[in-house]
Amino acid sequence: MLAYRRTSCQHLTRENLLTSMTYCLALKVDSGLLLASDSRTNAGVDHINTYSKMRIFDDAPDRTLVLLSAGNLATTQAVCNRLQRDLEDSRSKVNLHKLDYMFDAAEYIGQISRRAQSLTGADQSSVNTRASFILGGQIKGQPPRLYLIYPEGNYIQASSSAPFLQIGETKYGKPILDRLVHSGLSLDDAARLALVSIDSTRRSNVSVGPPFEVAYYERDRLQLTRTLSFDRDDPHFVRLCDQWGEALEQSFSVLPAFDWEEGAQSDV
Amino acid sequence: MLAYRRTSCQHLTRENLLTSMTYCLALKVDSGLLLASDSRTNAGVDHINTYSKMRIFDDAPDRTLVLLSAGNLATTQAVCNRLQRDLEDSRSKVNLHKLDYMFDAAEYIGQISRRAQSLTGADQSSVNTRASFILGGQIKGQPPRLYLIYPEGNYIQASSSAPFLQIGETKYGKPILDRLVHSGLSLDDAARLALVSIDSTRRSNVSVGPPFEVAYYERDRLQLTRTLSFDRDDPHFVRLCDQWGEALEQSFSVLPAFDWEEGAQSDV
Repeated sequence: MLAYRRTSCQHLTRENLLTSMTYCLALKVDSGLLLASDSRTNAGVDHINTYSKMRIFDDAPDRTLVLLSAGNLATTQAVCNRLQRDLEDSRSKVNLHKLDYMFDAAEYIGQISRRAQSLTGADQSSVNTRASFILGGQIKGQPPRLYLIYPEGNYIQASSSAPFLQIGETKYGKPILDRLVHSGLSLDDAARLALVSIDSTRRSNVSVGPPFEVAYYERDRLQLTRTLSFDRDDPHFVRLCDQWGEALEQSFSVLPAFDWEEGAQSDV
Repeated sequence: MLAYRRTSCQHLTRENLLTSMTYCLALKVDSGLLLASDSRTNAGVDHINTYSKMRIFDDAPDRTLVLLSAGNLATTQAVCNRLQRDLEDSRSKVNLHKLDYMFDAAEYIGQISRRAQSLTGADQSSVNTRASFILGGQIKGQPPRLYLIYPEGNYIQASSSAPFLQIGETKYGKPILDRLVHSGLSLDDAARLALVSIDSTRRSNVSVGPPFEVAYYERDRLQLTRTLSFDRDDPHFVRLCDQWGEALEQSFSVLPAFDWEEGAQSDV
């Protein structure tokens, strides 16, 4: 795996149909936040591309925010472009550095997303311009927060009883999260779990692909602890996926026998 | 678990909105077919019911057919009613006992399904009358076959490289099938795998619930070898789910450490 610097979201739209069905997820644990995303976009089977879906905002000393995106690539890029412009334009009254609360940031991004979706001719075509986001981070003096921002612009917050959020192709990777996520996980365990969930998803859906990016945010540090990028043949990622697959096979091979099989236990 | 007799599909429609989001799956292995289904139907959170979604046709000596259904309950019941009427009506030219090939049966069921969907006022309302089916079985002198019948009436066949089919809420339970299904599985292993896949699905989606029904069809027997029904508190099912969950936790706890953690292996 490689440490990586934040990626630019300022590419121009190349394919109006290009969507990132994507899989992004984020976990809120006692020690902080873990955010992870894939990097595949597609518009049918003949337009497969690689774009980062993780945008890191860590220039201000009092806050760090990470934005994950899924959905229409033109929309998600338009949102990132607008966020960047507002940050760089000294006349802008609102930007990610000026907002007081994380929920203000979620609402602001939601409104930008709605505007980006509406400023298209998509309502006269079959193009789906919808996009979803996960926003995680912390503003000094407040606890870390994690939000899912819907295409409609509204948003929900992760809680200790619902400590993970997902966007994009969410179902394949959810069962393992439902079983194993809890607030007491370390960030390293959260990262392993996110990679297992991503591995299950990319095996079942070709619209999800590497590199897989992971960001660690440790509570109250106000900057990222660690950013990782795993390519398909990254030795650690390969070892983790192989070991998980072998453990599942092994676990399956020792499941209880039925009554009529040899080696069956009698029901108590 | 209990052996059970086939269930009647001849209830009358109680709730027009009642749909069975459901999870049904079937595996085609060298030794035969394994079919499994849940039994929950719902029309919103205040109309939860239990209906069998497995219909067994084993009265004819030269064939056994099993039909699994997902989607609008009125549609799936209308289809079962029609299949039954055609079997009992001596004047019917076509029925499940008279068709020469399994694909004829798939096409016949697909056409009945289309008709059932069209004979409603649903196009003037928001009610979704669509339904999907899995048909498995064998006609004497031909190999066992497994078909997925789409709401549009067309159908595909399972093959040795794609040896399982799913309908309903398919995604949560697919990763474990993608990893572990192969044609060499015994019917008992196929049953265990189906139960694990169902367990993952019902944990992530409340529209899938017990009893879970399982049918074994052993190649060339022309009758079912075994039918099982697992209720929520069935001791075997509970033991299987518990053991699987514990094995996953154990597998997760020994995944490779990252470079910066204690106990990390160096990448080769």
